[in-house]
Amino acid sequence: MTVNGRPQAPLMTNTQADRVKEVARLAGRPSRLRRREFLAEGPQAVREALRLHLEKHDDGAGGGVVVDVYATAEALERHEDIADLLASGGAPIVRMVTAEVLAAMSSTVTPQGFIAVCRFVDSPLDDVLASGPRLVAVLVEVRDPGNAGTIIRAADSAGADAVILTGSSVDPYNPKTVRSTVGSLFHLPIVIGVELEGLTERLRSAGMTVLAADGHGTISLDDLQDASAARRFGTGEPGQDTGGGDFPSSDALPARGSGLEARGAAEHVRSVRLEDPGAWLFGNEAQGLAAEVTEAADARVAVPIYGSAESLNVGTAATVCLYASARAQRLV
Amino acid sequence: MTVNGRPQAPLMTNTQADRVKEVARLAGRPSRLRRREFLAEGPQAVREALRLHLEKHDDGAGGGVVVDVYATAEALERHEDIADLLASGGAPIVRMVTAEVLAAMSSTVTPQGFIAVCRFVDSPLDDVLASGPRLVAVLVEVRDPGNAGTIIRAADSAGADAVILTGSSVDPYNPKTVRSTVGSLFHLPIVIGVELEGLTERLRSAGMTVLAADGHGTISLDDLQDASAARRFGTGEPGQDTGGGDFPSSDALPARGSGLEARGAAEHVRSVRLEDPGAWLFGNEAQGLAAEVTEAADARVAVPIYGSAESLNVGTAATVCLYASARAQRLV
Repeated sequence: MTVNGRPQAPLMTNTQADRVKEVARLAGRPSRLRRREFLAEGPQAVREALRLHLEKHDDGAGGGVVVDVYATAEALERHEDIADLLASGGAPIVRMVTAEVLAAMSSTVTPQGFIAVCRFVDSPLDDVLASGPRLVAVLVEVRDPGNAGTIIRAADSAGADAVILTGSSVDPYNPKTVRSTVGSLFHLPIVIGVELEGLTERLRSAGMTVLAADGHGTISLDDLQDASAARRFGTGEPGQDTGGGDFPSSDALPARGSGLEARGAAEHVRSVRLEDPGAWLFGNEAQGLAAEVTEAADARVAVPIYGSAESLNVGTAATVCLYASARAQRLV
Repeated sequence: MTVNGRPQAPLMTNTQADRVKEVARLAGRPSRLRRREFLAEGPQAVREALRLHLEKHDDGAGGGVVVDVYATAEALERHEDIADLLASGGAPIVRMVTAEVLAAMSSTVTPQGFIAVCRFVDSPLDDVLASGPRLVAVLVEVRDPGNAGTIIRAADSAGADAVILTGSSVDPYNPKTVRSTVGSLFHLPIVIGVELEGLTERLRSAGMTVLAADGHGTISLDDLQDASAARRFGTGEPGQDTGGGDFPSSDALPARGSGLEARGAAEHVRSVRLEDPGAWLFGNEAQGLAAEVTEAADARVAVPIYGSAESLNVGTAATVCLYASARAQRLV
């Protein structure tokens, strides 16, 4: 059998084959850690995995992201762009499987015709910090696979330079997380298993302001955005202080309006510049960020809640924060 | 048995009882539609349902949101605030159940000790439109229960006045959606089953600008935010046009830079004011908004993607759009 003129291995039909079981086991963490491989399932994830694989191959870095691709004939016919990628020089050989074999390999009920076994794609923290990052998302004990995936995708959309996960956060190679990144896992550097101890100092040493996203934060994200806009429009420039009265404000900062406290908060808002390189820390779904983490940050920033919601989902909050930074950084 | 001094019905221990089966059936749409009742599961949802129930009772509207509350003794002990709500005048009587009975009633593996059977809480579209809404989210064929819940929660957080779901959208009384709103379903008016035909005209007649969130939109959300900020900071005021050159811009608008096209887009950006009352339309996860919907809107607005992501999750895009409007409206 050939695909796009290239010879293929014979069709795999045995759902009980050792290879099928080995692939399926990658849904579990022990197997992933032992083999340093994980599953990309569905056309979108497999496409992005192949693109990264070929990109690395092209730039002489040796490729090696994708170990194996399994596909049904029907899926390959339906997704010509993926068939084209698989026909490129440097692409892994695709193994044709029956829908039953694919289902037996998959962690999902609808693998949509494609599974790729991929090598771990995470980067060392030192490399990321040495690259001069301007926007980084840090997941501190984020435990829900879907939330982690949402934040990775939002970070990618916002043009972040990397996503860092502390050691106690969910494994980004969990199939649910991979799925919910919709390919973004292959778009930007991911750092995993990072020690929380000393992390804020390392981020700061790399030239970034460390912002803790914290529902009980002392600074409203609105105020940071206002201050940034004011600098851009030439009013309230930190160098030429026009006094607290001219400082653009929203109603969302709790400390506002009460003399010294408000002045202190305003000073703090001025010293934290959203347009500067920044690292956002996002915390656990239930507990948020621990006090020692928020205290080590340069600022504790709250996304304002204008309605009656008690809190924001961490994925939602992260999206708003990362987009606020991206916008401020691009407007300078 | 008494709870906070009030007499209680006897402990329910029979998982096979008719009542248990009736409650469990509310996880399915036919039973919900027939009885016009739905399930709120877990302490957070039950707490918010009870608050709305008591609020309506207090203002003479007759209460009636919560029909029955089922709780385990352990959960009532753990959540004193809910026990207090249940002890208020006008609260429904709580029925004590074993953990097994609660599990048999529940659609989730972890009902966390509480289930409330609630009457439908949706509002008529006419009432919502007559209330002078300033910010509304419209779900057009959003099919994923989790996405719908995320958008309802984000709308609540952004202080939106209502969420409208077209007839072909997911049922917001689906237990998964109720769960993912984390109580927000009880915080702001929800309108369901709305006909798409003629909806944009009705929204416009109610004084709102209709904004279609569209990844292929002709206007960047950044540009709308810039224009709004410029008006606020006294530059580029629509009345005192300072010419295209002074108009604050980002790089995200595709039409920018090419003479007439850019001028046309800039004019359009000026005519759509984010600080005015607005209704955002959010489309289907796979297909987005249909052409006839985006054409009927006042503007097709794209959330800029700064990185390599192909698209944004509809919940993420909705969050960014609703917060952009909320911010612009609050800054005026």
